[in-house]
Amino acid sequence: MRWLVLIGLVFLQAFAFTNGAQAQSDKEIKEALGALQSLPKKVPTPADNPQTPVKIELGKALYFDPRLSKDGTISCNSCHNVMGGGDDGRPVGVGVKGQRGGRGSPTVWNSAFNTVQFWDGRAASLEDQAKGPLTNPIEMGMESHDAVMMRVKKIPGYLDMFKKAFPKDKEPVSIDNLARAIASFERTLITPDSPFDLYKNGNKKAMTPAAVRGMVLVHQIGCTSCHGGANFNGEGFAMGEGNYQPFPQVPGSVYDKQYDLVSDLGRYEVTKKDDDKNLWRVPTWRNVAVTAPYFHNGKVKTLDEAVRVMAKTQLDMDLKTEQVSDVVAFLNALTGKVPTIVAPKLPMVANESLTPDP
Amino acid sequence: MRWLVLIGLVFLQAFAFTNGAQAQSDKEIKEALGALQSLPKKVPTPADNPQTPVKIELGKALYFDPRLSKDGTISCNSCHNVMGGGDDGRPVGVGVKGQRGGRGSPTVWNSAFNTVQFWDGRAASLEDQAKGPLTNPIEMGMESHDAVMMRVKKIPGYLDMFKKAFPKDKEPVSIDNLARAIASFERTLITPDSPFDLYKNGNKKAMTPAAVRGMVLVHQIGCTSCHGGANFNGEGFAMGEGNYQPFPQVPGSVYDKQYDLVSDLGRYEVTKKDDDKNLWRVPTWRNVAVTAPYFHNGKVKTLDEAVRVMAKTQLDMDLKTEQVSDVVAFLNALTGKVPTIVAPKLPMVANESLTPDP
Repeated sequence: MRWLVLIGLVFLQAFAFTNGAQAQSDKEIKEALGALQSLPKKVPTPADNPQTPVKIELGKALYFDPRLSKDGTISCNSCHNVMGGGDDGRPVGVGVKGQRGGRGSPTVWNSAFNTVQFWDGRAASLEDQAKGPLTNPIEMGMESHDAVMMRVKKIPGYLDMFKKAFPKDKEPVSIDNLARAIASFERTLITPDSPFDLYKNGNKKAMTPAAVRGMVLVHQIGCTSCHGGANFNGEGFAMGEGNYQPFPQVPGSVYDKQYDLVSDLGRYEVTKKDDDKNLWRVPTWRNVAVTAPYFHNGKVKTLDEAVRVMAKTQLDMDLKTEQVSDVVAFLNALTGKVPTIVAPKLPMVANESLTPDP
Repeated sequence: MRWLVLIGLVFLQAFAFTNGAQAQSDKEIKEALGALQSLPKKVPTPADNPQTPVKIELGKALYFDPRLSKDGTISCNSCHNVMGGGDDGRPVGVGVKGQRGGRGSPTVWNSAFNTVQFWDGRAASLEDQAKGPLTNPIEMGMESHDAVMMRVKKIPGYLDMFKKAFPKDKEPVSIDNLARAIASFERTLITPDSPFDLYKNGNKKAMTPAAVRGMVLVHQIGCTSCHGGANFNGEGFAMGEGNYQPFPQVPGSVYDKQYDLVSDLGRYEVTKKDDDKNLWRVPTWRNVAVTAPYFHNGKVKTLDEAVRVMAKTQLDMDLKTEQVSDVVAFLNALTGKVPTIVAPKLPMVANESLTPDP
């Protein structure tokens, strides 16, 4: 019996090699690893919005509060669910009255490390981003930021929380401070200690051999020339500077039509510059394994297929099945540890509802 | 200046009395208090579904998991928000694709003390209730309970959690066990130590004088003959026994038409018995101040108006403004302390989404 197991193991190993899943040399591993970064312990924070516990607590309440939407059904967390992948696990976001957006909800995890926000980079900070969905008619659907603040001001508990979070302000209850508080909470939403981070920091058992092979591969074929940096999205730490890349880089593959990759013009919709047509912010790889479906329109259902599509459209490469599987193994090694979040106790209003049906 | 303040105070007190807000005699207070119950410390639990920490933890994850809905947008918590009033603060519930239901979402807080569930009592237990919304086409919209379980079975973390929660079961991952787990979590959702409970238990400073007046009034005019018992809904502890009452009891007031009180036939829709026309489960008063808007159709926006409507339609009484205000003060004294809930870390599926748009 023992012999049988041994023969089986030898066979499996041989199969693994003939199957193209070659072990990487130490030099190759070292080189790839040297080019990649683990998640920093420190989150970049704007000078005018330092983190404080009371501000984070306020931001958390606002983040989970569906009363910030027109009919009381949508909170930030509806599309950026911090109990899951920091997104909604859906092709595109869903706002008030069941309206579908045109793009997928990006994950909020580690968005603190992004230097621009949204798929097209139209917000230069988390503060700036937080204000957008509130008044987007197909997202949270509020008429104006004033309408948001009028509602917030009817909630006594919030008045108190804003005062404590912004003690020096004469008018603490403002849309800017609301955005600052939400951004402060979002800066706590980081997912350290992924298998890759542990591996990078010295624990060589933290990644599977397949993940190590995938890591070397993505370095060697050039994926990480865009998907580099701490957040694997190529963004540096200068706020407002986005890493925009054409997608597809190599147009004309079958995927363009199959997954409708070209009709949304991305960055161009913001700048209206021809050069920006089909340019997109490079999205993070962190937690990508748990944020299916994929791409700006969510039309690609599995990570395997997303890897094949990217190799073809960006690098003009047809990856072998085992290469795809190694890359997927590496991407799975970028799923980090999510923080424990105590659900907020939303400050309530007595005797009336703030969210009648319009 | 001191004199002025004193004169002002005397005037205010005199005004309070002439305004009808009479202090109650000790005898009246004792009598009312004797007829009312504080919230029990112990939650009734079915013999076949004992509370265990792992089961509660599983139930919590399921309760917050939007993947239990067709398109991944609605969880139990969407309509029964335990960060707020245990409801959605809206006139009627909103399900997948923005669909509006016909009735308001009852609060989940203290629903463990109800002996039947839903506005019409059509579920005899929390377990039974939990299965309903999953397959209601305008709520969570799943095709069948099998479809729910097929999805749950694709989530490896859940398989493990079900096994641990139901260690004796051969097939732990079942719709009945899903309902048992959710019900177990819901049995932790109780709100003790409201000002009334503290008052009832001996702290005579816990309620304002207005709340005390309101308490005596609701006892004397007969509100608590229906809104009695631990959950102020008149239900006893025999599971499956509902306290159904006609609403309106005295038809023909202006409110019938103004708030469309008659067209939904309530309990009749379940039993199809003529005697059950316009019968409703008496809803709880606990946390009623933070669960506006009011009644089965959510058409009454404020608690003041709800009190006026109930006095007229059920007791044929026109309450004075100050009586309404006292009753509202008492109802506010029934807002309890909500438990601290750690948000679940939902078990994730790698590489694919379970919630494509249909």
